[in-house]
Amino acid sequence: MADARAALGRLVRDVPDFPEPGVVFKDITPLLADPAGLATVVAGLATAGRDAGGGPCVDKVLGMEARGFLLGTPVALSLGAGFVPVRKAGKLPGETHAVSYDLEYGSATLEVHRDAVAPGERVLLVDDVLATGGTARATADLVAACGGEVVGIAVLMDLAFLPWRENVGEVPVTSLVSVG
Amino acid sequence: MADARAALGRLVRDVPDFPEPGVVFKDITPLLADPAGLATVVAGLATAGRDAGGGPCVDKVLGMEARGFLLGTPVALSLGAGFVPVRKAGKLPGETHAVSYDLEYGSATLEVHRDAVAPGERVLLVDDVLATGGTARATADLVAACGGEVVGIAVLMDLAFLPWRENVGEVPVTSLVSVG
Repeated sequence: MADARAALGRLVRDVPDFPEPGVVFKDITPLLADPAGLATVVAGLATAGRDAGGGPCVDKVLGMEARGFLLGTPVALSLGAGFVPVRKAGKLPGETHAVSYDLEYGSATLEVHRDAVAPGERVLLVDDVLATGGTARATADLVAACGGEVVGIAVLMDLAFLPWRENVGEVPVTSLVSVG
Repeated sequence: MADARAALGRLVRDVPDFPEPGVVFKDITPLLADPAGLATVVAGLATAGRDAGGGPCVDKVLGMEARGFLLGTPVALSLGAGFVPVRKAGKLPGETHAVSYDLEYGSATLEVHRDAVAPGERVLLVDDVLATGGTARATADLVAACGGEVVGIAVLMDLAFLPWRENVGEVPVTSLVSVG
């Protein structure tokens, strides 16, 4: 697994100054285009949704628009869970909960359908990169508004030099590649 | 399979006048939230990437932002193919091919990384809904610009009352639910 994770890191391309000067963008498209890499990521993220006994313990997987969509549905399938899209403002047609927050660069509003997570449901958040943790924190707030419980956060990559732990609190985080 | 497809249709919710008056939006979120429904859709779409002999014959699966991302990666995994995101303008950090086109409502520009599809590669397009076919046609143009070949289009749902065939030409289309 250590070898597989090292291979994953090599399939993510650093793009300096994108989308704006001073930001190093993590481009996951080479990894997505690699069938073995994609399978390794999905299998690795799905472990975050299984308890120590090996059984699934997640009712819903939430993925954040847009790159969280790429990894969220296959992880949900792997876990036998339902998938819930967390979308940018104005994209969901039903009644929503909404939250606004600051990004690594800029700000955003996220929404989820009010009936997407039932009270008491156990939720796994899936995204590609955990940077400041602002998106994960905002999504956790949406889950709380629905009455659900975030039992884990699963990401391909975390940026260890950013203080994401301050935002996500005590929720267990599974990250396949940690960038120091 | 007929029963399964009928069940899929019931899991898609019609939302009148969204995102603007006169448009009936097909909301697939209830289907995504249903583990069995999601699995049925992915299995059904993956059949579009297998030849008559049963073996995979697709090198890349392309999914169009944002809802095409939801179904594209699990279909790629099922086929052992790579996944390529087709994104809205300005989202991809590398060198891209771009195409602008008219939507059912409004217009849009789509991009793909120039190196995402190699010359001669066989490509399956995956999206949630085939309406006018404008998005599929634009994506096919991007594949052609890369030198690849679109061997199929796989969608959860097609709107049979719209003239999508005029846009997609002779490419085989697999649609799990046809709305008359």
